Amino acid sequence: MVVTLLTDFGLEDEYAAVVKGVILGINPSVTLVDISHELLPGDIRRAGWLLSWAWRYFPRGSVHLAVVDPGVGSGRKILCLEYQGHFFLAPDNGLLTPILREIRSPRLTAVTQKRFALKKISSTFHGRDIFAPAAAYLSKGTSPRQLGDRVGSWKRFLIADPVFEKKSARGEIIAFDRYGSAITNLPGKRLAPMASSGQLNFRVKGRKLSGLKHSYADSPKGSPLAVIGSRGLLEIAVNLGSARSKWRLQIGDPVTAHPAR
Amino acid sequence: MVVTLLTDFGLEDEYAAVVKGVILGINPSVTLVDISHELLPGDIRRAGWLLSWAWRYFPRGSVHLAVVDPGVGSGRKILCLEYQGHFFLAPDNGLLTPILREIRSPRLTAVTQKRFALKKISSTFHGRDIFAPAAAYLSKGTSPRQLGDRVGSWKRFLIADPVFEKKSARGEIIAFDRYGSAITNLPGKRLAPMASSGQLNFRVKGRKLSGLKHSYADSPKGSPLAVIGSRGLLEIAVNLGSARSKWRLQIGDPVTAHPAR
Amino acid sequence: MVVTLLTDFGLEDEYAAVVKGVILGINPSVTLVDISHELLPGDIRRAGWLLSWAWRYFPRGSVHLAVVDPGVGSGRKILCLEYQGHFFLAPDNGLLTPILREIRSPRLTAVTQKRFALKKISSTFHGRDIFAPAAAYLSKGTSPRQLGDRVGSWKRFLIADPVFEKKSARGEIIAFDRYGSAITNLPGKRLAPMASSGQLNFRVKGRKLSGLKHSYADSPKGSPLAVIGSRGLLEIAVNLGSARSKWRLQIGDPVTAHPAR
Repeated sequence: MVVTLLTDFGLEDEYAAVVKGVILGINPSVTLVDISHELLPGDIRRAGWLLSWAWRYFPRGSVHLAVVDPGVGSGRKILCLEYQGHFFLAPDNGLLTPILREIRSPRLTAVTQKRFALKKISSTFHGRDIFAPAAAYLSKGTSPRQLGDRVGSWKRFLIADPVFEKKSARGEIIAFDRYGSAITNLPGKRLAPMASSGQLNFRVKGRKLSGLKHSYADSPKGSPLAVIGSRGLLEIAVNLGSARSKWRLQIGDPVTAHPAR
Repeated sequence: MVVTLLTDFGLEDEYAAVVKGVILGINPSVTLVDISHELLPGDIRRAGWLLSWAWRYFPRGSVHLAVVDPGVGSGRKILCLEYQGHFFLAPDNGLLTPILREIRSPRLTAVTQKRFALKKISSTFHGRDIFAPAAAYLSKGTSPRQLGDRVGSWKRFLIADPVFEKKSARGEIIAFDRYGSAITNLPGKRLAPMASSGQLNFRVKGRKLSGLKHSYADSPKGSPLAVIGSRGLLEIAVNLGSARSKWRLQIGDPVTAHPAR
Repeated sequence: MVVTLLTDFGLEDEYAAVVKGVILGINPSVTLVDISHELLPGDIRRAGWLLSWAWRYFPRGSVHLAVVDPGVGSGRKILCLEYQGHFFLAPDNGLLTPILREIRSPRLTAVTQKRFALKKISSTFHGRDIFAPAAAYLSKGTSPRQLGDRVGSWKRFLIADPVFEKKSARGEIIAFDRYGSAITNLPGKRLAPMASSGQLNFRVKGRKLSGLKHSYADSPKGSPLAVIGSRGLLEIAVNLGSARSKWRLQIGDPVTAHPAR
């Protein structure tokens, strides 16, 4: 069984390792995969996006432990979501928003049963004391209902949905990747029909981009382009460069699509 | 069996991977867990603290390989410590100080037997040539005594112990974490009785902190607090911020505890 | 079976994790080892050197997936190399140059068979859609010839070979490590005979280094030295410091060796 880890713990402290040690103590045969520990401290939104983009590529039965948890020890719930054979553990602080919004009636429980936690529960590191053992027990077949009771409400963060009109669309930048590509909330599936009837142009921060490219290398070196990235979302990128720094892009910047004429 | 790795190799070179390759060549069924490779080059003290805070959370039988080794090739010994069913491999440069000081008569050997090393031993990378094969053989059941002879003395670094008086205590900052929280050498277990008879205040760099908080979120955003952190030690932290940069704290800065009146 | 990963994906996005998820979905029993994901975006040369220095330390049968691939989606080939019982997957952009130059007639195939790829192949993330499944199938025993046809030509980057004269040698810096040590293309094996007849001195950027040291600690703290590093190559290093920043060294800087008199 696979357990993935997504945290803002960084890699310079022992936090992520300790979580893994606790998991391996309960289920020694688990395969551990880091999604990322390099989120900015408290960056719940980015954690939510990353998790929503990553989980599908793991085998059914995987447990996804996501701990970006500035409210640790404050009484916020810990949620367990079961969806399409995957299990998600996250604080009830909005982190699961991008995944939950695609599920009509999610099977959510609150993790409360102490017998699936470490004996001594600190008020500062639930990743180690509650999330890690819960993930290990889920990976061994414990059902979410054994961890605690069903819950019917949960925290969300606001997601700006893109607006599609007959011939144009308006979205925004929701994340950047390490290459400096700007990931938008505009799905390629919705843009494709618009592009089929003629070239589609894009506008971001007063700059214009002509047409949808096939790949990053379809633009000259250092030159910006619009492309449907690996998440199925429109990206603003620069071939062998960073769109983010070239145009000083920021999360929330609007991106629009129009027909060429 | 688990082998953990703690080094100052960083993640941009092939060093850590090569160590893992050697281990897997000898014991393919081992589970490898990185504690950290992001220590500052030569930061033996931080390596010692991290190891002492992490090892307990791993299952018995785990092997902990710690290579922060600026003296490689200079003739310093390589130590193997067996303690509570765990095995530790580290250069004899003080790295094991925080673990060794809690053990009355430690079972220590010097790793010298060439048959548990790579055939060709370089003078610049014992992590690969000696530590990795020794860790792999330990994980397969080789006993520390097969690796070399018992040793009765070892290098230590100076640890400033906290001073407890009737109603007050004086310690210092020994490390920071990625969030900028300052970890002190003041154990929560010793502070708790002092706090039970009335509020405890703290002083660091001329600044005063009132009372011991339960969790980071018990203080307003950006506001400093004193809390018993996940290692059982007093921490000076800032909710959703960095105490280190807010107050320009440094390792060695004194921290004192006093009754409120 | 071991699958190693070497990419310029960084650790802040979900890219490396998604590649691992795809591999584990096809071969759940694989052991995954990161060589590095911290290469500068598009740094094909460094990827080539790192891979050539790392692969030998892994057990036979290992699959080495190397994705530094700015030309993704542009029609460049994906190569599979079988060599000494190891399998290498890399874009045909020169990345395999350091390994291929030591092989007289390499067994190379182009990965083209769609049945060993994900059903939907994007034009921006072949690491996930083609490399990952191919690596997983290789680790399960699929032969390179099943992945596609043999190829007889491939891209290379220019490697400056060192020049050896009777009593002197001239090479250059090809990489740096995290400690700031400069790795040259001068093999210790060639320098050793020159050094056996008397002390060897070195020159880099107008600076002189006297003699070949045994280890980093053989020079005073902060003092530069020449040493045969763990890759068998001459290194210019500083004990407990960085040669790179001390002398502002750059890749391509010439390094020469001369007899002491």
